[in-house]
Amino acid sequence: MWPRQLTILGVGLLGGSIGLALRSLRPQCRIVGYGHRQSTLDRALEVGAIDAGAADPKAAVAGSDLVILCTPVGLFESILTTIAPAIETGCAVTDVGSTKRAIVRLAESILPDSTEFAASHPMAGSEKRGVEFARADLFRNALCILTPSAKTKPTALQRMDEFWRLLGMRTIRLDPDEHDRRLSDVSHLPHVLAAALVAMQEDPSLDLCGQGFLDTTRIAGGDGALWRDILLDNADNLRQSLHRLQSQLSSVLSMLDPRHGDSLRDWLDRAAQRREQLLARKLREIHPD
Amino acid sequence: MWPRQLTILGVGLLGGSIGLALRSLRPQCRIVGYGHRQSTLDRALEVGAIDAGAADPKAAVAGSDLVILCTPVGLFESILTTIAPAIETGCAVTDVGSTKRAIVRLAESILPDSTEFAASHPMAGSEKRGVEFARADLFRNALCILTPSAKTKPTALQRMDEFWRLLGMRTIRLDPDEHDRRLSDVSHLPHVLAAALVAMQEDPSLDLCGQGFLDTTRIAGGDGALWRDILLDNADNLRQSLHRLQSQLSSVLSMLDPRHGDSLRDWLDRAAQRREQLLARKLREIHPD
Repeated sequence: MWPRQLTILGVGLLGGSIGLALRSLRPQCRIVGYGHRQSTLDRALEVGAIDAGAADPKAAVAGSDLVILCTPVGLFESILTTIAPAIETGCAVTDVGSTKRAIVRLAESILPDSTEFAASHPMAGSEKRGVEFARADLFRNALCILTPSAKTKPTALQRMDEFWRLLGMRTIRLDPDEHDRRLSDVSHLPHVLAAALVAMQEDPSLDLCGQGFLDTTRIAGGDGALWRDILLDNADNLRQSLHRLQSQLSSVLSMLDPRHGDSLRDWLDRAAQRREQLLARKLREIHPD
Repeated sequence: MWPRQLTILGVGLLGGSIGLALRSLRPQCRIVGYGHRQSTLDRALEVGAIDAGAADPKAAVAGSDLVILCTPVGLFESILTTIAPAIETGCAVTDVGSTKRAIVRLAESILPDSTEFAASHPMAGSEKRGVEFARADLFRNALCILTPSAKTKPTALQRMDEFWRLLGMRTIRLDPDEHDRRLSDVSHLPHVLAAALVAMQEDPSLDLCGQGFLDTTRIAGGDGALWRDILLDNADNLRQSLHRLQSQLSSVLSMLDPRHGDSLRDWLDRAAQRREQLLARKLREIHPD
C-alpha cells in the first residue's frame, strides 16, 4: 500500500484538505503534519487532518513514503535543505506551489537522487486561509497539473498522477515553462487585475458595488505575501501578460467611438461567446454525463 | 392606490422581474407589457409577468399611471417620442437604464411637462437575458440609484423611491453626472476588463482555467449590443477609468522586482483588506441584524 505514511509540510487550507481527503479514502495511512506554529498543528489535529504533529520538518518526514510541501513557496529552499538528509530512499516528494519552473530547479538541486520528486499544481483552493477551512472534497473534479522536467523519473510522475486522481482530480502534464506562462495568463494576471480594480476605487464608489463587482474581485481577497511570491517568481511571464492585456485595452479605447460601434459590439459578443463555451466545457468536466 | 396600471416597455429579464414582483405585492394592479416580438409577450404572459400585451408602445401606455422603460437604451428616443402624445397627465415615468446623463436629457426634452419623470438605475440583473429568467425577488436587498436633475419634480422622485422600496430595494440619490462617473469605475470598467481577460487568452490556456477565472470573467457573459450602448454612452468616463486602471498596472509593473517585494505585498494586502471590508458591508446591508 502506498502511501503508508504521508507527511504534509504546512497544514493550511491545501495541506489540511489533503489530510482530510486521504484520511477519508485511506484510513490506514498515517498522516504527519509539520507547521510553523503549534496552534496550527493543534487545529489540524482537532479537525482530523493529521494524526500527529511535528515541530520540525526533519522529524516530520522520518519514515514517510510520501512528502508534500504545502508551505508558502518562499520557505521551500530552507525546508528542502532541512529534509534532504532525513528523507527515506525512494520516498515520493511533491509540492502544491502555484509556479513551477523555480520550484522544479530548486527541488532537483537539493533533494538526493534517490528521492522520487515530481512537481504538482493542484488547482484548488479559495481566497480563504487556514486549516479551519480545509475540506475533504476540495480537490474533487478540479484539475491538477503535473510538471515533469527532463530529470523527473517516470515512476515518480506515475505515482503522483495516481495520488491526485485518488483525491478526485483530473490530471494533465505540462512542461514547467509552459505551466508558468499559461498560469500567468489565466491566474496571476486575473489576480493582479482584481486587486487593481479594488485599489483604484474611490471610497464613495464602493457603496455602488453590485454582485458583479464582488465576483470580479473575489480573488483579490488572497494573502499578500503568498501572492507576492507567486508574482515575483513569475514576473517575466506576468510582464508579457500585462502587455497583452494592455493591448486589448488600447483596442477598446480605439473602439469607444460611435463610428466603431459594430466592432465594439462584435468584440464584446465574441468574449461573451468564448466564456459561454468555456463554462459549458467546465460543466461537462464536472458532470461528464 | 398607485400604481393602478403599470406599463412595462420591454419585458426581458428586468421588465419581467418588475412585473412578477409587483404582481406578488399588488395583485390588484393591472400590468401591461410591450415587446418588440409577439413571442416575448407570449412568454411574459405565460410566466405571469404581465396581464396583457400590446404590440405598440403607444397602445401600451394608454390608461397607465406608471410607465417603466426597460428596452435597450438605444431604443429610448424612438419609444419616448412614440409614447409622449399618449401618456396620461400626471403619469409617473421611469427607466432602468445603466447610464443616466443622456437618458435624463432625452426624457426631459421629449416627455410633456405634465409627466412625472424620475430616472432610476435598479442595480439588479445577471448576465442572463430574457423573461424566462425573470424572478419576483430579483430586486430584493439590491440598490436602486435615483438620479434627479434640476428639473425633476419632488413628487416624481418620491413616488419612484416608494416604488423601488416596495420591491425590496434600498434607494439612494445621485446626480446623473456623478452616477455615470462612479458606475464607470465599479461596473463598466469591470465589464471591459472581464471581456479583455477572456479575449486575450490563447485557446490551450482555457483548459487551465479554474473557478477564479470563471468568477472574474462572469460579467463578460452579457449581451454585446446592450454593453456597446452603455460603453459608448459613457465613453468619456470610461476613458478616465481605463487610464486610472492603467496607472495601477504600471505601478504593479514597477513593483515586479524582488527589491520592491514589500511594496508589492503591501499593495496586495491593502486590496485584499479593502475587498474584505466591502464584503462585510454588503453582508450587513443584506442581513442588517
